[in-house]
Amino acid sequence: MKITIQKTTNPKPIPKDDSKLGFGRIFSDHMFIMEYTAGQGWHDASIKPFQDIPLSPAAMVFHYGQEIFEGLKAYRTADGSVQLFRPEENFKRLNISAKRLVIPEIPVEDCMQALTELVKLDEAWVPHSDGASLYIRPFIFAKDPFVGVRPGNEYYFIIILSPSGPYYETGLNPVSICVEENYVRAVKGGMGFTKTGGNYAASLIGQDEAHNQNFAQVLWLDGIEKKYIEEVGSMNIFFVIGDEIITPELNGSILSGITRKSVIELCQNWGLKLSERRLGIQEVSDAYDRGELKEIFGTGTAAVISPVGLLKWGDKVMEINGNKIGDISAKLYDTLTGIQYGRLADEMGWVKKV
Amino acid sequence: MKITIQKTTNPKPIPKDDSKLGFGRIFSDHMFIMEYTAGQGWHDASIKPFQDIPLSPAAMVFHYGQEIFEGLKAYRTADGSVQLFRPEENFKRLNISAKRLVIPEIPVEDCMQALTELVKLDEAWVPHSDGASLYIRPFIFAKDPFVGVRPGNEYYFIIILSPSGPYYETGLNPVSICVEENYVRAVKGGMGFTKTGGNYAASLIGQDEAHNQNFAQVLWLDGIEKKYIEEVGSMNIFFVIGDEIITPELNGSILSGITRKSVIELCQNWGLKLSERRLGIQEVSDAYDRGELKEIFGTGTAAVISPVGLLKWGDKVMEINGNKIGDISAKLYDTLTGIQYGRLADEMGWVKKV
Ligand SMILES: Cc1ncc(COP(=O)(O)O)c(C=O)c1O
Ligand SMILES: Cc1ncc(COP(=O)(O)O)c(C=O)c1O
Repeated sequence: MKITIQKTTNPKPIPKDDSKLGFGRIFSDHMFIMEYTAGQGWHDASIKPFQDIPLSPAAMVFHYGQEIFEGLKAYRTADGSVQLFRPEENFKRLNISAKRLVIPEIPVEDCMQALTELVKLDEAWVPHSDGASLYIRPFIFAKDPFVGVRPGNEYYFIIILSPSGPYYETGLNPVSICVEENYVRAVKGGMGFTKTGGNYAASLIGQDEAHNQNFAQVLWLDGIEKKYIEEVGSMNIFFVIGDEIITPELNGSILSGITRKSVIELCQNWGLKLSERRLGIQEVSDAYDRGELKEIFGTGTAAVISPVGLLKWGDKVMEINGNKIGDISAKLYDTLTGIQYGRLADEMGWVKKV
Repeated sequence: MKITIQKTTNPKPIPKDDSKLGFGRIFSDHMFIMEYTAGQGWHDASIKPFQDIPLSPAAMVFHYGQEIFEGLKAYRTADGSVQLFRPEENFKRLNISAKRLVIPEIPVEDCMQALTELVKLDEAWVPHSDGASLYIRPFIFAKDPFVGVRPGNEYYFIIILSPSGPYYETGLNPVSICVEENYVRAVKGGMGFTKTGGNYAASLIGQDEAHNQNFAQVLWLDGIEKKYIEEVGSMNIFFVIGDEIITPELNGSILSGITRKSVIELCQNWGLKLSERRLGIQEVSDAYDRGELKEIFGTGTAAVISPVGLLKWGDKVMEINGNKIGDISAKLYDTLTGIQYGRLADEMGWVKKV
């Protein structure tokens, strides 16, 4: 793929204080953009100064939500180099989302080329402090100026970069989450296994009500029986019950997280008993009552491992591991961040130097 | 509400041949736009030349689908005046969608004022031929340049106008539809009762597969048991079984259509037996086998009444009323379009002159 590069003549100052970065608010100097036109395919790949995109108010994305995205990070290692964590997995998943949303696919190699050239150009934007990283957001949306329900004939594929601080500013502390019992985020046959706007739009109201009760996140149940655990707002979820580590199986309504996949592979390597299976909230609650619910943790690119200290289900509030980080959560966090930041050897072949 | 008006200095030619308008492709000279900022509320209402909107690539609408819309029409009457059909209902529904999507509401009076001033200014764009109309698309989306899942702090509310031809160019002919058995559009607890992008995005793949089999639309079943009839892509649906007219009840996963509501009110006025209730696809199929399935029709702003001539469920293809328009469908179509175009007296008080 030929990528035209137009460098900014007006570079922005790179933030000096990583502790003030926050998450997803600041954007680097450049972006990748490529266009799709029916009959012509993907064309005009370019890297340009980060800039506003002019769109007709009739552009389909404003009306029919035909949009997908990905999220991954570039990490600065101790020797100053920059590396990515399993980036091909993100672009494979982008294409899985594309298929469900009737969006034209993009070869993974082309995505990787676009990403690599962009990150190289804006390499100075990758933060240097531990826990900080360059968050990468690839996304595709339909842009035809047409007000009618059908798949778009025109799309943009864009990648933007956002230097971001540690997800939890106070370090790896347990979060409180609550089971959502009224709203549904996704259902089998729907779009839950994809990263598309509608899933997140559907989740806002539950998240909002959880925040009002001082919970950080919602734990979603299946949309059919409202009994089985699915995932957290933007994390997959794991439970340690006795000596079994359990995470909900990929059933079509939850996202196949890359951190989830990595955690499963690590646990298996370590000889731990790991099950991907249907898990009822009742089973979790019963295990708690028996004193066998040892740890709960979320997994996702943003926070890597997020230990859960409190789990609320109806009137019952379960305190997990004395609201402290558990051993397995801690070991997974240290291992994954160790590999991501290059402190540990990359025995799994997960890391890609830029 | 104070609306600033900036007229175009470069008016576009108004299409002369209504038969070439199509649907949702052409836009009038002006648009209404108003902005929301957290802490400040809705502000800067204005009518401007129809123009592109510049947005940051990080604008939330591209990523998290926090967007809602409405669809209604302005009709040209024989005396040359312009009128709307139950427009307040659309803005009430816009606010119902807003609540579910955690979008700030807009008073119905303000919406009506915006709409009325805009349609007055672009009145010449309302087509003159029968069956043609000015399609009106109000919509709201989150626009903050922020890449993280939370409700937006900044929104646009926009109204655009599109002169459109008759929905079916060949006149009121029966359409073929097929029952969707793999994909789910919406589920109880989700967003099915709202007009938000995600519902339509979820439906594209089913619609696409139906088109490939030469069906015009998909008939969606409930997402939980996959047994009960919900609605068609962008229409509600009615069945005449024996002397009962049945439409699925509003259960949280289907849209409360304004045409649906009007059809129910008309049927009740006419003394027909009308039920809003759960209706299984098996019940429909059984009625067909007994020879009691008299008519099926969809209802929606775009096509008003759309008779269904063929209904496919699995391997079974049901031909309804000899693939001809039924009496009730025809009477409803004539009555509704009669009121909309001012040929019939507006006894229900549904029409609003602009
Ligand atoms: C809904 C949802 N589930 C799970 C995840 C975790 O996936 P990953 O580990 O690939 O970041 C994310 C975030 O990416 C998400 O948005
Ligand atoms: C999903 C859906 N159902 C039903 C309808 C019909 O609603 P109305 O009669 O208000 O146009 C529409 C179209 O507006 C729709 O998009």
